[in-house]
Amino acid sequence: MSRVYNFSAGPAALPEAVLRQAADELLDWHAAGCGVMEMSHRSPEFSSIIDTAEADFRELLAVPANYKVLFLQGGASQQFAQVPMNLLAGRSADYLVTGSWSSKAYKEADHAARAIGGQVRLAGSTESCGYTRLLRADEMTLDPQAAYVHLCTNETIHGVELADVSCLPVTDAPLVADVSSHILSRPMDVSRYGMIYAGAQKNIGPSGLVIVVIREDLLDRAWAGTPGVMNYRVMADNGSMLNTPPTFAIYIAGLVFKWLKTQGGLAAIESANRQKAELLYGFLDDSDFYGTPVARDSRSRMNVPFRLRDPALDADFLKGAAAAGLAQLKGHKSVGGMRASIYNAMPLAGVQALVDYMRDFSARRG
Amino acid sequence: MSRVYNFSAGPAALPEAVLRQAADELLDWHAAGCGVMEMSHRSPEFSSIIDTAEADFRELLAVPANYKVLFLQGGASQQFAQVPMNLLAGRSADYLVTGSWSSKAYKEADHAARAIGGQVRLAGSTESCGYTRLLRADEMTLDPQAAYVHLCTNETIHGVELADVSCLPVTDAPLVADVSSHILSRPMDVSRYGMIYAGAQKNIGPSGLVIVVIREDLLDRAWAGTPGVMNYRVMADNGSMLNTPPTFAIYIAGLVFKWLKTQGGLAAIESANRQKAELLYGFLDDSDFYGTPVARDSRSRMNVPFRLRDPALDADFLKGAAAAGLAQLKGHKSVGGMRASIYNAMPLAGVQALVDYMRDFSARRG
Repeated sequence: MSRVYNFSAGPAALPEAVLRQAADELLDWHAAGCGVMEMSHRSPEFSSIIDTAEADFRELLAVPANYKVLFLQGGASQQFAQVPMNLLAGRSADYLVTGSWSSKAYKEADHAARAIGGQVRLAGSTESCGYTRLLRADEMTLDPQAAYVHLCTNETIHGVELADVSCLPVTDAPLVADVSSHILSRPMDVSRYGMIYAGAQKNIGPSGLVIVVIREDLLDRAWAGTPGVMNYRVMADNGSMLNTPPTFAIYIAGLVFKWLKTQGGLAAIESANRQKAELLYGFLDDSDFYGTPVARDSRSRMNVPFRLRDPALDADFLKGAAAAGLAQLKGHKSVGGMRASIYNAMPLAGVQALVDYMRDFSARRG
Repeated sequence: MSRVYNFSAGPAALPEAVLRQAADELLDWHAAGCGVMEMSHRSPEFSSIIDTAEADFRELLAVPANYKVLFLQGGASQQFAQVPMNLLAGRSADYLVTGSWSSKAYKEADHAARAIGGQVRLAGSTESCGYTRLLRADEMTLDPQAAYVHLCTNETIHGVELADVSCLPVTDAPLVADVSSHILSRPMDVSRYGMIYAGAQKNIGPSGLVIVVIREDLLDRAWAGTPGVMNYRVMADNGSMLNTPPTFAIYIAGLVFKWLKTQGGLAAIESANRQKAELLYGFLDDSDFYGTPVARDSRSRMNVPFRLRDPALDADFLKGAAAAGLAQLKGHKSVGGMRASIYNAMPLAGVQALVDYMRDFSARRG
């Protein structure tokens, strides 16, 4: 067995220690006589798994007591529709668009609003500059009466990250954020949000799980037609188990949370992530051969899009990278070029290996 | 490691060979340098996994070419809402209720119809007899103009199975069936249905995956507000990948399909399932100590609810069973008593061990 450095944007690399434990326990979890995939979700064994996962997640992210943590299905994309179903309540919501994902969220919410009542407003967009930077305060026009303000705090495709929502205009409307691709990569103040949600397949675990963290006072606004399994109140009252949850994905997420705690929690992982990002961005900024389109103050620590100045070399670059054990560096088709996703599970040695390869490639081909 | 005989109704036992292969490949699938959980769903590696899974599933079930196979999220419970969203089209649909699951499907569809337009009709129910038998032909009143007729062909909780839909009144309306808990346990004629769907966590794989098989002419009836990831047409056009699918669950499902083929396919597995069911029902019928409430012609081969004549012995029965390595025999809380789910992955030896234990327990305590 030889493992590569996997720069996939998601589903993404998992900590090797987590995978080893999962492999060890796959046929027999804690002498239960069966694996986690085979357990009733109502069994005491699985109850301990989901309860521990939630407790560790709450501890890592310091989730306030007046927020519910839900383990749901359908990914962030389903949340794009579930958010207006649950929170719009016939009113108007503001959407900030800073890349592909917040744009998709806006379009799906607009689609939903036309059917269920209410409306969504484009309250700011960086589309005209190619989503290469954050919104400036003077580019946002927030409606103080909005049901909520939706944003994506890390754009996986465009590599734009909003670290601190205090730069947003002051508003009483609850913030609802897609935090899929940088959750658990740094501490965050959950109390600044009405709700956050994250697809698991970046920093949490396997695809097929999405975690919703929602303030309790927002649980009772759902559109009357909201299906039971999509209704936050119903799922909160049923401990995320109105139906069978994605049990194995929740188990893996729980192992990742334990691993994060052994790494020292979010302050420690942030420090490691900062070091990795500085290494890669520092190299890009010093290079004439490579470049990144993202403005310095807007750069994601998790997803680093970059380009070769000469795109004719892209195929050779990727071929050499793969041969060097550096996988999944091709950029998203909508952006082109390259992208290195350096989530929590990517060690500094992986980023160093990437930089070494890039330096060598530019020396040979520059 | 010691594995029990696991009679869980779902998530349920998986073939040990499947789990062993999954454990072997968890850190490195086919020398890809990463496990399946860590692969981009757009990678050639995962494309081969999902394509092979679909091809094997189609082969096993002999799915006609004019049906799409979709790998979705949200379980059968989400389908209860998605079916009317996609197929009701402002019309009326008939629901046959023969147990807890078809009852839930009916209620969720009624809830959806009130919001999106159209209506659902209760076209027959066995609630008054406690869901202990199938509907008789004269108990069903089907509307020839119905958008569809919904039924559940195996009621996991009540242990009632409809093997042959030719006993239904003749109708031109497409049949839509929840086949979650007996799919792949026997051959079925998919062409008799407009659509079937199945949560994976019984005979297919881990929870968090639901498979939809739908005739192509039914793909274009969706309610305008249907979210993209819930719209069958959109998902069919995107190869189930408008968003990130539950990749690991699809991989395990694919391994289960391969295992089924090594067992000889559905005709062979049906023969084994018949033998297992006859052993258990035969024992129950011969016993004065145990009984099953389900009518003979309605009995499920997959889920066998049974009772001790003296419920005061239930706790001792379960305790002794657990000590004998016979797990998850407690009946659903809504029914009480016991339930043995004997899906494809349960070997005959497991059913024999259960019968031996039951015989011994009745001899000691009868």
